[in-house]
Amino acid sequence: MPSQQVTVAVLGATGAVGEQILKNLENRSFPVKELRPLASARSAGKTVSFRGEEVTVLEATPDAFEGVDIALFSAGGSISEKLAPEAVKRGAVVVDNTNAFRMDPDVPLVVPEVNAHEIKNHHGIIANPNCSTIQMVVALKPLYDRFGFDRVIVSTYQAVSGSGAQAMEELQAQSRAYLSGEEIKTEIMPVGKLDKHYPIAFNAIPQCDVAQENGFTLEEMKMVRETKKIFGDESIGVTATCVRVPVLRGHSESVYVELKRDFDLEEVRTALREAEGVVLEDDIHQQLYPMPLEKAGQDEVFVGRVRRDTVNPRALNLWVVSDNLLKGAATNAVQIAEKLVQQ
Amino acid sequence: MPSQQVTVAVLGATGAVGEQILKNLENRSFPVKELRPLASARSAGKTVSFRGEEVTVLEATPDAFEGVDIALFSAGGSISEKLAPEAVKRGAVVVDNTNAFRMDPDVPLVVPEVNAHEIKNHHGIIANPNCSTIQMVVALKPLYDRFGFDRVIVSTYQAVSGSGAQAMEELQAQSRAYLSGEEIKTEIMPVGKLDKHYPIAFNAIPQCDVAQENGFTLEEMKMVRETKKIFGDESIGVTATCVRVPVLRGHSESVYVELKRDFDLEEVRTALREAEGVVLEDDIHQQLYPMPLEKAGQDEVFVGRVRRDTVNPRALNLWVVSDNLLKGAATNAVQIAEKLVQQ
Repeated sequence: MPSQQVTVAVLGATGAVGEQILKNLENRSFPVKELRPLASARSAGKTVSFRGEEVTVLEATPDAFEGVDIALFSAGGSISEKLAPEAVKRGAVVVDNTNAFRMDPDVPLVVPEVNAHEIKNHHGIIANPNCSTIQMVVALKPLYDRFGFDRVIVSTYQAVSGSGAQAMEELQAQSRAYLSGEEIKTEIMPVGKLDKHYPIAFNAIPQCDVAQENGFTLEEMKMVRETKKIFGDESIGVTATCVRVPVLRGHSESVYVELKRDFDLEEVRTALREAEGVVLEDDIHQQLYPMPLEKAGQDEVFVGRVRRDTVNPRALNLWVVSDNLLKGAATNAVQIAEKLVQQ
Repeated sequence: MPSQQVTVAVLGATGAVGEQILKNLENRSFPVKELRPLASARSAGKTVSFRGEEVTVLEATPDAFEGVDIALFSAGGSISEKLAPEAVKRGAVVVDNTNAFRMDPDVPLVVPEVNAHEIKNHHGIIANPNCSTIQMVVALKPLYDRFGFDRVIVSTYQAVSGSGAQAMEELQAQSRAYLSGEEIKTEIMPVGKLDKHYPIAFNAIPQCDVAQENGFTLEEMKMVRETKKIFGDESIGVTATCVRVPVLRGHSESVYVELKRDFDLEEVRTALREAEGVVLEDDIHQQLYPMPLEKAGQDEVFVGRVRRDTVNPRALNLWVVSDNLLKGAATNAVQIAEKLVQQ
């Protein structure tokens, strides 16, 4: 780690992702000179733990970014739209974990294992991709480099923590209610701000995020657009179906990818095994494959069920699991911040 | 319904599927002259309810099939292998719900909405396909007839009831334990007879059934092989990834299908709306799509999230939900039996 010490603001410090960012800064020995946890007026005055001390949360006003070197944002898109320019104006570099700037051509969209070189092109804001995109591109990067591909079809199995800490509480409360025969309250899933809410306990909801004109959801279109941008390759065609399942932490993905050249499976496994940020856990005959419940709290992207497609011998099927709050959000953001400090 | 009355044996009458077969026979006013519930010696002597009466379960011996016209089997593959020939020898027609005879070229594999005409070709045994195959082919049949297709890529979200009543109890017990911070006991999932068992509560397990030589699971290969056989079209290429999720009843499937001719989406929706056994629930803008929790107990196959693929304009994406114990097992078997009686 570099020795330069920086002042770090964490916006949304009391949320599900903010909490993981603080843990990550601590665990990765990030060179924090001063930590400034920020949140809405409602949460200001609370405290968060950092390196064994209680730090008071401040209200996220424009002036709260005075003197900040790096600001990690995860308080929702509209707040990012309003406050990121203010933070940049005051000299901070913003690593934004929302959808606000991801497709802005002036904003690098970065997964360090894939396109760390884009970080230097920032104009004050660097975007952290969507959780479901991040884990997929980390798993696909070694295949892209060694074999090339232009076609991906993915179906996701997404944890409720993608919708925040309240959604995690909702799943648990609904599960308790269902098991004791009580009425199930539905207030958040699938999308808090939409009209209709459905039970997620013992259910599967084929909607993450709002609907788009073309019948896909925003979550699905994020995977389509962000994958092209991160690889810097508009020829990559992604089809996504995003589904919420009753899992607290950890997204899983069933990924079909058509490679551009012939391969043998051991070559694929070697590429995955050697890839930065990837852990290969792949032996169906020994019942070895990653599962979200056991990967919660881990930073890597786990890949299993690697198999040659039965129809197209150039295609591969993969099962990709990662903690959506960590590599899917907090860890990736802090990794970007680390690269910033190194530069 | 025809007026001919028949003697019906239900083998596995005390199991999760057997129970649903009895309900189905009752609800569909199947012309049962005599019901003969059969099970292992362990369950013999218990009673089951049928048309308001308690009927004693008999031990499933070869002679128990004397005088039986139609025998509905769902007590596991090895029992079918042993007893189906005995039942046939005694004059019964067997509708077998296990994997024992599905790929036998002398045994029709039937989903009435797709290939009812195959029933007449039986030599005593008719096979009921795998649950995840049945709901997919019912949804795909109208597309096959109107547009043709030869390529399907499917990822499943399968309920634990596919592994029987004990697996349903396991999911509930594990959920209770997790929520109260107690130790989670793992005895059944993902596959009872295998060495390793994993929690399914708040988890996703990318394994249904045992592993095959090619790295796919048997459940995945069932979808590949059975789809070809049911459509009678070896050119259909299916890629399947089968995943167990913490749902009690109702399988869901994310289906990508490449049609052979151009289409407009309304034409597709009309074909689905008019198809036998299909209920279209499709309007993402109104948050209308099927979900397994609300479809438990219903006989139809529900289809939503119908959308043109963003990459291949000839491809469609669908979300298909059905109760795996009903259309995926009991209902399909009883529908076959109805056709047998009509013939």
